Amino acid sequence: MRPSVEHRRIERFHDLDWVLREVTRRVVPLLQTELLRPLSAIGRVSAEEVRSPSDRPSHDASHMDGYAVRSSETSGASRQRPVALKVDGFTGPNERGPPLGSNCARRILTGGYLPEGADAVIPQEEVVIEGDYVLVLRPVKPREHVDRTGSDLKRGATVLTRGEVISPVKAALLESLGVRSVSVMTPPVVGVMSFGSELTDDPEKADEGRVLNTHAPMLVSMLSKLPCRPLYLGLVPDYVDAAMSSLKRALDQADMVLTVGGSSVSELDVVPRALVELSEFFVQGLRLQPGRVGGAAVVRGKPVVVLPALVHSTINVLNELGVPVLTHLASAKLNQFFSLSRAVLSEPISFHKWIDFLKVVWVSVSHHSGQLSCRPHVTESSVFSSVAFSDGYLLIEPDVDRVDAGTEVLIKRPLWML
Amino acid sequence: MRPSVEHRRIERFHDLDWVLREVTRRVVPLLQTELLRPLSAIGRVSAEEVRSPSDRPSHDASHMDGYAVRSSETSGASRQRPVALKVDGFTGPNERGPPLGSNCARRILTGGYLPEGADAVIPQEEVVIEGDYVLVLRPVKPREHVDRTGSDLKRGATVLTRGEVISPVKAALLESLGVRSVSVMTPPVVGVMSFGSELTDDPEKADEGRVLNTHAPMLVSMLSKLPCRPLYLGLVPDYVDAAMSSLKRALDQADMVLTVGGSSVSELDVVPRALVELSEFFVQGLRLQPGRVGGAAVVRGKPVVVLPALVHSTINVLNELGVPVLTHLASAKLNQFFSLSRAVLSEPISFHKWIDFLKVVWVSVSHHSGQLSCRPHVTESSVFSSVAFSDGYLLIEPDVDRVDAGTEVLIKRPLWML
Repeated sequence: MRPSVEHRRIERFHDLDWVLREVTRRVVPLLQTELLRPLSAIGRVSAEEVRSPSDRPSHDASHMDGYAVRSSETSGASRQRPVALKVDGFTGPNERGPPLGSNCARRILTGGYLPEGADAVIPQEEVVIEGDYVLVLRPVKPREHVDRTGSDLKRGATVLTRGEVISPVKAALLESLGVRSVSVMTPPVVGVMSFGSELTDDPEKADEGRVLNTHAPMLVSMLSKLPCRPLYLGLVPDYVDAAMSSLKRALDQADMVLTVGGSSVSELDVVPRALVELSEFFVQGLRLQPGRVGGAAVVRGKPVVVLPALVHSTINVLNELGVPVLTHLASAKLNQFFSLSRAVLSEPISFHKWIDFLKVVWVSVSHHSGQLSCRPHVTESSVFSSVAFSDGYLLIEPDVDRVDAGTEVLIKRPLWML
Repeated sequence: MRPSVEHRRIERFHDLDWVLREVTRRVVPLLQTELLRPLSAIGRVSAEEVRSPSDRPSHDASHMDGYAVRSSETSGASRQRPVALKVDGFTGPNERGPPLGSNCARRILTGGYLPEGADAVIPQEEVVIEGDYVLVLRPVKPREHVDRTGSDLKRGATVLTRGEVISPVKAALLESLGVRSVSVMTPPVVGVMSFGSELTDDPEKADEGRVLNTHAPMLVSMLSKLPCRPLYLGLVPDYVDAAMSSLKRALDQADMVLTVGGSSVSELDVVPRALVELSEFFVQGLRLQPGRVGGAAVVRGKPVVVLPALVHSTINVLNELGVPVLTHLASAKLNQFFSLSRAVLSEPISFHKWIDFLKVVWVSVSHHSGQLSCRPHVTESSVFSSVAFSDGYLLIEPDVDRVDAGTEVLIKRPLWML
């Protein structure tokens, strides 16, 4: 039996910053960490600042294939009067070998450490071999073609900061510095649950008239690029008691929950009704457009972010509220998940409704001869295609009702959507 | 026994564009495709253009929770003289229900299809319920709060292009349009092999004095974000015969090979010696700095990209040659793997060597009150930290030897490095 018609309204819309602050002050970031080899920690969030345990390079190193020499012994060398230096051996990679003999040259390759006594390298292209000797045809300057000890990175320099996602390059750098383990945060489990009696996860049932649940798998896929373990928790029908018991079960299994749909004011919107009962903190209504029927709650210290069903709104509330809450919980720095870009707006944008809200406008970026321009897609929140065909979005501040063509704007590109 | 010293030199450096053209015209893109459900095809490369099989929405749909009405029946309505419309039922999600009776309103929720006869929606917040009637207090305009048929996407509109990586949002859109399968390219297997007798994959052996092979796992991790299946093929010692047999084996197992190290001109640089024997096409020497000792080959129709060992060079040759070759092989559009941004250079850059080459300068981007600025890291190619601490890179054209502070520059951010 469907519940009788009920007319509720959202009495008050809340600033996103305020909602975020109220949620995060009630939610303690997860504390559990793991020790992993850096190369096994790629994509994980560092739980600590890591400083370099060594200089890089650890000794003066050759920048070329050639010969390590004492520069002073090459002074006055010329094509007419070459200086002959005896090749006293080869110093292989990661060795230093014996000290350089006087009036000698040591065969050395790129990256090889200079033997004691040597202070410069002459590239092999610039010498002539004559038996056991090399002929140097010009003076070599001190430190020529030498990468000095610590010139790449000094011992004690910060390599990794707390909250940083470990990139492949950082992991390789840490390993090459001799760092053999790094402490990373255990990622929170983020549950995704979809509300709506009309929904199905089965494409065959969708072809027979049900509505295919595409939002949850889309969100799970996006979450897989964020510092968490996504967990799909299934479909919930539009009954308050079903919503209550499903939400309770979800919060037993997950560290954070995203609800999708059922967030508005009709008699079938059961999420706010359930959360208002369960939560120590709950708001419905955000000063964000599209996205205003979103909300957030805290239940037993765990955050719940309420995503509206219309796809524009779903994604905007995820990006501007869900992801900041998630990175707080995961102890990850937020800004690394967005790529920022400036571009020139090709068409004006104007707003006629919700002008005192923060507005999200998706844009397509194009690149012509070094210039970037962006075309806005100002559409209703139900429009899927404008998000699907966009490269990122602009945030237009409350009370700004118009942005002129030709304005340079800042585009946020949410990297988890790629 | 190590080979005797040999002094080779790179006689000629080649334009990257020329090398790319010569390689790609000898390499046929892989033809194999798979049919997958869109939600299972996220991250895969579309092998076809997909057009929408239906309008979205498929019927005029409500943008609000409220009542579907005939707008003409509300003309003249006011607070003083409300128009009473009988509620003739509820049309649920994905239904149309019976045609709207005259002087009736139909209960409808966001996303619901308008019944025949209705042409507008009045939000529930704006009506008063009185028994079986709703009182409408103002005239409703035709099409008010209605998302028109096809307003999001028209039947036949292109949703997916050939060569596009399928994003989570695109997959969800395709599924919601009723697309049940999409043809995607089978990804090429890309082998990674590291050259150097000094290398080990075992951190314990590295602590005892060997050099830890960090490049190959770093590259495998980056490749995992590109349209391919990376395959680590192990270490190869510095002997030409070992290089020959390892490369032959690699090309049996992989559709493309990246070699790392051993690419220069010393007696231990065996990769060019092996490739010159095996290849129908081979170049050593690129007009790219850092990266000039990189190269490329085609062996039995399969591309080999030769990455130098110094990390700056490794990554630059991967990004500017390896990835374009890979996307050619995988039939993927190249530009979607870079995020472009413009920023103001905070310090001048000047070059004293290799000025007639294409130069790569890694930069850190920072954001202050809507403005983006970037700080260049002009360093030697051996320097790991400048890449590790960067957000992207600039390409400085040949013969440009200086870029002034304050210049607005275009930054390429390789998304596979995140």
